[in-house]
Amino acid sequence: MHVIDQMLDTYPKDLGDVDRAALSKCITACRECAQACAACADACLSEDMVAELTKCIRSNLDCAEICTTTGDVLSRHTGYDANLTRAILEACQTACKSCGDECASHADMHEHCKICADACQKCEQACVDLLATL
Amino acid sequence: MHVIDQMLDTYPKDLGDVDRAALSKCITACRECAQACAACADACLSEDMVAELTKCIRSNLDCAEICTTTGDVLSRHTGYDANLTRAILEACQTACKSCGDECASHADMHEHCKICADACQKCEQACVDLLATL
Amino acid sequence: MHVIDQMLDTYPKDLGDVDRAALSKCITACRECAQACAACADACLSEDMVAELTKCIRSNLDCAEICTTTGDVLSRHTGYDANLTRAILEACQTACKSCGDECASHADMHEHCKICADACQKCEQACVDLLATL
Amino acid sequence: MHVIDQMLDTYPKDLGDVDRAALSKCITACRECAQACAACADACLSEDMVAELTKCIRSNLDCAEICTTTGDVLSRHTGYDANLTRAILEACQTACKSCGDECASHADMHEHCKICADACQKCEQACVDLLATL
Repeated sequence: MHVIDQMLDTYPKDLGDVDRAALSKCITACRECAQACAACADACLSEDMVAELTKCIRSNLDCAEICTTTGDVLSRHTGYDANLTRAILEACQTACKSCGDECASHADMHEHCKICADACQKCEQACVDLLATL
Repeated sequence: MHVIDQMLDTYPKDLGDVDRAALSKCITACRECAQACAACADACLSEDMVAELTKCIRSNLDCAEICTTTGDVLSRHTGYDANLTRAILEACQTACKSCGDECASHADMHEHCKICADACQKCEQACVDLLATL
Repeated sequence: MHVIDQMLDTYPKDLGDVDRAALSKCITACRECAQACAACADACLSEDMVAELTKCIRSNLDCAEICTTTGDVLSRHTGYDANLTRAILEACQTACKSCGDECASHADMHEHCKICADACQKCEQACVDLLATL
Repeated sequence: MHVIDQMLDTYPKDLGDVDRAALSKCITACRECAQACAACADACLSEDMVAELTKCIRSNLDCAEICTTTGDVLSRHTGYDANLTRAILEACQTACKSCGDECASHADMHEHCKICADACQKCEQACVDLLATL
């Protein structure tokens, strides 16, 4: 989303020594992953074999919510708190790893799980990359 | 976000007679507006004249949360409920109109408010357009 | 939650001519309904007959999220906007009515749906009551 | 909230060897803390000296959102994932510690910050206690 960079560019104060590219990439990945997971939960819910997808739906719901929250925390710069940024990034990385693995395990049967697994893996990597710069 | 269309394309059941383009456009606009509003609230918070921006911050927080919720409701198709879709779209349209007007009123002083006003107006229009197809 | 009244009591500015009792009751009902719906979605997901409960799960997820958002909007008083309060309360009333009806329709089979239907009906009424005072 | 225990009691499957009392207490604390933080952010926003409270508002917003998300994750039992539960509890504990310290530092000047600091400390402890049982 172009709007992420526009808002970073117009933040009135100094952003500190944050890696701007890694931050922007991570917010973008969180937003895309949240969208993929919300939609994947609903797609799984509409599958005839939904009874076999309940673990996936639960992972989707957790990951969607954690990614949205992480994207919001990363979009706030006032009163920056490195400990909190690290803690929520680690939770997000864990959620994406867990949901990505679950979706990948039946990605060959459900195209929506394949797309979601990709979004999870991209977001997990973006969290790892941003954590490395902190 | 490309992922919105990919998930709509791979939804396992029939999406009904929804206007697919209007739906995709509205989810996209909700996501961008939520991001712009979350970031604008924080940018306002860091302005030296924050005391004059408290109404804007409050509008931003409401609009961000309502847009996120609307984007999530619109991403669920299982057990579609036209009444609920209409009600949340109307709330989203109201939030975007309110926040867009507020941001626009001091957009000449704060570049982040100008970007946010644009995102609000785009999202308000996308809600109106989707409502017209229901 | 006691904390709702404590925070209303210590708000630094005048709350305006809002009906304080109706406001407190509605925030409380939104929080309880959000909790009931989040838990009911997960309980339905773990039922053997989950395939017959997909509409209920979707209603639960929408209602949980809209109740949380409504509780948050109602907890903000700075820059009060009656139009927005009305619009989100109407969306919340619609979500609670829809989810309450769905849960009530199989409340005799699932105790968690009965508890959730009660929470939805209480929240729907609290929205109606608060709307009547605006 | 009574509804938390009612929903735990009626969950259709076995909850595993989770410490039910610690779980219920932690969900309750997350809900109360989220409410306190959402209201405290808005109360700070309405203080005349808002310019000196921007760090507190930011902490409030992060903590409110992380507590809501943690309460939701803890309310889902289907496909339980200990790693994710631990990660989000650690993030919640960090957010509550950070926000509680910030609020406590000016609790003598703002009654709402005192109430919020109490809610944060209670929630931080509930996270620690639940983590100890996992």
